[in-house]
Amino acid sequence: MIRVGINGYGTIGKRVADAVRAQPDMEVVGVAKTRPNFEAQSAVDKGFDLYAAIEERKPRFAEAGIDLAGDVEELVEASDIVVDACPSGIGADNAGMYREYDTPALLQGGEDAEVVDSSFNARSNFDTVEGDDLVRVVSCNTTGLSRLIAPLQEEYGIEKVRTTLVRRGGDPAQSDRGPINDILPNPVSLPSHHGPDVNTIFPELRIDTLGLKVPATLMHMHSVNVTLESEPSAAGVRDLLESEPRMFVIPEWLGLDGAGAIKELAQDAGRPRADIWENCIWGESISVESGSSSIRADGEVVSDLYLFQAIHQESDVVPENVDAIRAVLGEADQAESITTTDGAIGLDEPLVRR
Amino acid sequence: MIRVGINGYGTIGKRVADAVRAQPDMEVVGVAKTRPNFEAQSAVDKGFDLYAAIEERKPRFAEAGIDLAGDVEELVEASDIVVDACPSGIGADNAGMYREYDTPALLQGGEDAEVVDSSFNARSNFDTVEGDDLVRVVSCNTTGLSRLIAPLQEEYGIEKVRTTLVRRGGDPAQSDRGPINDILPNPVSLPSHHGPDVNTIFPELRIDTLGLKVPATLMHMHSVNVTLESEPSAAGVRDLLESEPRMFVIPEWLGLDGAGAIKELAQDAGRPRADIWENCIWGESISVESGSSSIRADGEVVSDLYLFQAIHQESDVVPENVDAIRAVLGEADQAESITTTDGAIGLDEPLVRR
Amino acid sequence: MIRVGINGYGTIGKRVADAVRAQPDMEVVGVAKTRPNFEAQSAVDKGFDLYAAIEERKPRFAEAGIDLAGDVEELVEASDIVVDACPSGIGADNAGMYREYDTPALLQGGEDAEVVDSSFNARSNFDTVEGDDLVRVVSCNTTGLSRLIAPLQEEYGIEKVRTTLVRRGGDPAQSDRGPINDILPNPVSLPSHHGPDVNTIFPELRIDTLGLKVPATLMHMHSVNVTLESEPSAAGVRDLLESEPRMFVIPEWLGLDGAGAIKELAQDAGRPRADIWENCIWGESISVESGSSSIRADGEVVSDLYLFQAIHQESDVVPENVDAIRAVLGEADQAESITTTDGAIGLDEPLVRR
Amino acid sequence: MIRVGINGYGTIGKRVADAVRAQPDMEVVGVAKTRPNFEAQSAVDKGFDLYAAIEERKPRFAEAGIDLAGDVEELVEASDIVVDACPSGIGADNAGMYREYDTPALLQGGEDAEVVDSSFNARSNFDTVEGDDLVRVVSCNTTGLSRLIAPLQEEYGIEKVRTTLVRRGGDPAQSDRGPINDILPNPVSLPSHHGPDVNTIFPELRIDTLGLKVPATLMHMHSVNVTLESEPSAAGVRDLLESEPRMFVIPEWLGLDGAGAIKELAQDAGRPRADIWENCIWGESISVESGSSSIRADGEVVSDLYLFQAIHQESDVVPENVDAIRAVLGEADQAESITTTDGAIGLDEPLVRR
Repeated sequence: MIRVGINGYGTIGKRVADAVRAQPDMEVVGVAKTRPNFEAQSAVDKGFDLYAAIEERKPRFAEAGIDLAGDVEELVEASDIVVDACPSGIGADNAGMYREYDTPALLQGGEDAEVVDSSFNARSNFDTVEGDDLVRVVSCNTTGLSRLIAPLQEEYGIEKVRTTLVRRGGDPAQSDRGPINDILPNPVSLPSHHGPDVNTIFPELRIDTLGLKVPATLMHMHSVNVTLESEPSAAGVRDLLESEPRMFVIPEWLGLDGAGAIKELAQDAGRPRADIWENCIWGESISVESGSSSIRADGEVVSDLYLFQAIHQESDVVPENVDAIRAVLGEADQAESITTTDGAIGLDEPLVRR
Repeated sequence: MIRVGINGYGTIGKRVADAVRAQPDMEVVGVAKTRPNFEAQSAVDKGFDLYAAIEERKPRFAEAGIDLAGDVEELVEASDIVVDACPSGIGADNAGMYREYDTPALLQGGEDAEVVDSSFNARSNFDTVEGDDLVRVVSCNTTGLSRLIAPLQEEYGIEKVRTTLVRRGGDPAQSDRGPINDILPNPVSLPSHHGPDVNTIFPELRIDTLGLKVPATLMHMHSVNVTLESEPSAAGVRDLLESEPRMFVIPEWLGLDGAGAIKELAQDAGRPRADIWENCIWGESISVESGSSSIRADGEVVSDLYLFQAIHQESDVVPENVDAIRAVLGEADQAESITTTDGAIGLDEPLVRR
Repeated sequence: MIRVGINGYGTIGKRVADAVRAQPDMEVVGVAKTRPNFEAQSAVDKGFDLYAAIEERKPRFAEAGIDLAGDVEELVEASDIVVDACPSGIGADNAGMYREYDTPALLQGGEDAEVVDSSFNARSNFDTVEGDDLVRVVSCNTTGLSRLIAPLQEEYGIEKVRTTLVRRGGDPAQSDRGPINDILPNPVSLPSHHGPDVNTIFPELRIDTLGLKVPATLMHMHSVNVTLESEPSAAGVRDLLESEPRMFVIPEWLGLDGAGAIKELAQDAGRPRADIWENCIWGESISVESGSSSIRADGEVVSDLYLFQAIHQESDVVPENVDAIRAVLGEADQAESITTTDGAIGLDEPLVRR
Repeated sequence: MIRVGINGYGTIGKRVADAVRAQPDMEVVGVAKTRPNFEAQSAVDKGFDLYAAIEERKPRFAEAGIDLAGDVEELVEASDIVVDACPSGIGADNAGMYREYDTPALLQGGEDAEVVDSSFNARSNFDTVEGDDLVRVVSCNTTGLSRLIAPLQEEYGIEKVRTTLVRRGGDPAQSDRGPINDILPNPVSLPSHHGPDVNTIFPELRIDTLGLKVPATLMHMHSVNVTLESEPSAAGVRDLLESEPRMFVIPEWLGLDGAGAIKELAQDAGRPRADIWENCIWGESISVESGSSSIRADGEVVSDLYLFQAIHQESDVVPENVDAIRAVLGEADQAESITTTDGAIGLDEPLVRR
């Protein structure tokens, strides 16, 4: 059994804890949290040992009547590997602690790529991180883009990716985040940092991205253009994507018009926390445009693929973290790990049974 | 086993179907739906027999590849009781069908009180509906108010209730509903119809209500004033409410600042669809104000109770529908039914374990 | 001519500057600002002398190419009176500077009542602030409530006010404020601080208030209950309110369903910045409820008045600031000042001409 | 004087009426409206003769106490040209009436291109519509794209345009429109109809568009990619765009982060209804990417231009309608008309004076 510690028990950490516990080859040593709130209580209710992430705040747990199992350092020491799910920037601060205890650690996508030895996406570069000390599971958006790019790259070749990321302003419980009634260029300067982040997984890929922020909380939306180095049919692309793991190509007849409806479906399907671990691609949106200027210098035919995909920012990286644990420790190969991960959490069961 | 048919498989109907199936003394005969969409498929995936609510639309199910068990009339005939969870106004249209087949039916709170024999709230008037043909389970808002009013009435006496209902504009998947950026008096004329609706449960109660609509989807919020015919302490009121079933008095230390956080907690607790069947009352908000003019003509002391409660519009009436089935058929008394209902769906397990 | 300095040139300050400039008996000495942004440029474009509110930031104005007339201290010294429209809390910090230069100052409603000599509302207590050094023009919400309470108090007597304030989450350009999709008790503990703030204007009034925050930016909404010490007709109350200055009783036939429509009307009417300086009360919402328990110990008849009013948080205090200038300096009596203020800015012209 | 009738007095019609009235060579014969509401009253308050668009509804105006000048047919007959600003689809229905009275008419962009003789954008094809009977002023989004495409096309050549239109869900006063908390592919099938609409102005242009709908009311946002047939610097593109009429390239130092801030600036600048007739392009966002695969078959160098532009859906077509009047009637050439239009309404005065 791989002994996994979870440092940070918020949106990502609590989901990773549940997913790890569900794996046949892993156990959760404990979870670390900075302050006693409803999530800390929930960890206790679920039977996770709770560790104090900040020593001087331990009395606050005592006041709230929440028992602690120890300090985060003890958790790190007792773990074979740590998943750091702390807020952006804190993971980098924690890197020294992980090195000190010689415990490999997974950081999240909010950390800078320079902080880590490598970046990880299960579909795209599973085999490249074994033995690394600090590995970054790329962000929800980069995960979503990587899963899409990998099969397109392999099957058709990619000349260039151009994507607008229309991002949710905050998660459902983040009541202090805006905007309330605006559409914000974010960042204003172009191309955005999301493209270079994808390049940590696909170093040679030409990709330009643009980011916006809007008053919605449920999912991110990607407006995707991929100039392919060939000219497949839309139906062909759709078949390809439907055959990929962690990909939900939405059939037209379901009548899902946005993130609200997708989440409703996930609730009805009994998904924990209504999580949608898959990329959600509207089948109807997949289209391929070509034309007279699509012959390149080398005689190659190109075409423009377009599609919309929705990404559940709270959960799509969860199975990726689980896979990264095995990849770093060399405990399984890609296919085996993905199959195990998905089977254990129910991701192998489609949102709609046919 | 009570054979229950569900006519209408949307927000309420699908939840009632799951809740009925979970009961030890009930079974779901089938569910009726007007059109094939993701919810129809979900019904099939869950193994519910699906009936066509509108005969001429049956070919659309066939086109979508969804098998039907028959017409809604067959469902009504085969059922001991029907829960009608159709959109507002359709329930009244269906009343003739239920009478024709001599099947008692529960309508929902969107129907007019004049359409039915009686209105129902499990906490307040369980014993009054046995043998009625058409019973209305009052709306989410009226259910929430009734659960609060009943114990206050019994314990302290109520001179008057004044409540502002700040209502969500639409449910999470109702993407065609607004407003986007406004606060709407709704209805504009005062007092609103919500007060008279509460009077279908508490005929003698003096209650004035005001309704607003805002750009939120998660829960309704009630800003409640109750002028009590005595002068309890806030702590006393809190103790009273904490001892009530289907009531979640939010402890301060949980740090729940609004509906987003409450839903997050429900997700973490593993509630199906993150449903919150309970009234959610902020413990910190409970306050009692009195003063010099609080002596009435009859020498009675009065005081003003204030509190905020959030109501999950999609689910608080679900256990009420289950209880109403037993109440109408005379299959259990109030305490027995509530205990059975809550135990079967997990409502007896608190959102926070201490 | 009264020489007026404006310290703070944001939402309130820029509006007060325009309103002061429009007065026949006042001139704007200059405006002070902390940083060079579009509002600073706009001040320059309008021909206002610009002063640096923070000395060490003066180079940033130079870098942005914006000319400064001097430091804020020079502005204070050159002014007969200063309107401090700085963010909440800064006004209190500035109090020492105003005293040092012996310049009377008006602070805004975000400051604590303890900081100032007196609180001000033109309709309610114009005559009480003459000669005071530091006067607080009460907040947008308290201004709106005071204008409503004063005539009701005078005409009918008030037993108690109970009001729920459904507040906008942020102003239209405050893109960093939430919530996006929530309804927040704010503050959670009841009654809220708004009631005591109204008591700075009406010390004897019994008033309990509750506050909520919602995802809207245009106006606040008050759900008002006033228990009156008499039993007027709704029509009588409506006539009374229609005869009040700075009060817009919305006729039904206009079809204004919320703040968006009111702002649209203000735009169409050519109001600067679409400002709505008046309380906006839905005529249709005005209702009076009485009943059997409405006889008090002293034999007095009481009744419950209900209504909805919308308050434009960005502008309703603007004419109040102008009046406060004259009131503090003893330059005009109440009626004269209100008439002059309203005539100069166009508030005497109704939003609808009949 | 050109006698102009306005049929439809809503969001667009009322703005066009004001703009036409401001022109030195035009007069407003009258405006037609279907029902008496605050906008009808506002038309009367402004001194516009009001005509009934639907004869049988005339009594409703009488009931509301609003005087009518006659029926819409009389307005059409008395006008040299009519601007039809009716809701989408009604303009097409009205086409027969305009032909019957032999009055040329301008329809709006919501009408199908097949209904009209030609489509119009002042910057791009002013000279092509003279003498046409029915001319369509293209939609707000197509107007915004056309103004941007024309100079890029002329200066650099365009290989292809790819644009994601993130559209506001409704206008500020349209309280019945959603979504409240979602991001909707709209339309789901790609490419969207916006591209072909641009082709009514630029028939040869290769353009693919994608549309989304979000919970915002203030402006649309375009995430623009233009593959140029040359490789200019970003600074060069910026200079080009800054020199264009009806184009506001936002300087960084203004600190405008979204539509809310832009509208605030327009309010401060005293723009009527805070209208922003210009394309608003974030200067900082303008970027040009090139690279190894940017050599095409014909040896041509290409590069990818990216930028964000915000479009005020309520007003950017207003000056276009005014120009179209002169273009159709042959009363002025392009430069003369644009200069006259902009000078008369104040569009020649920049939002920031330097």
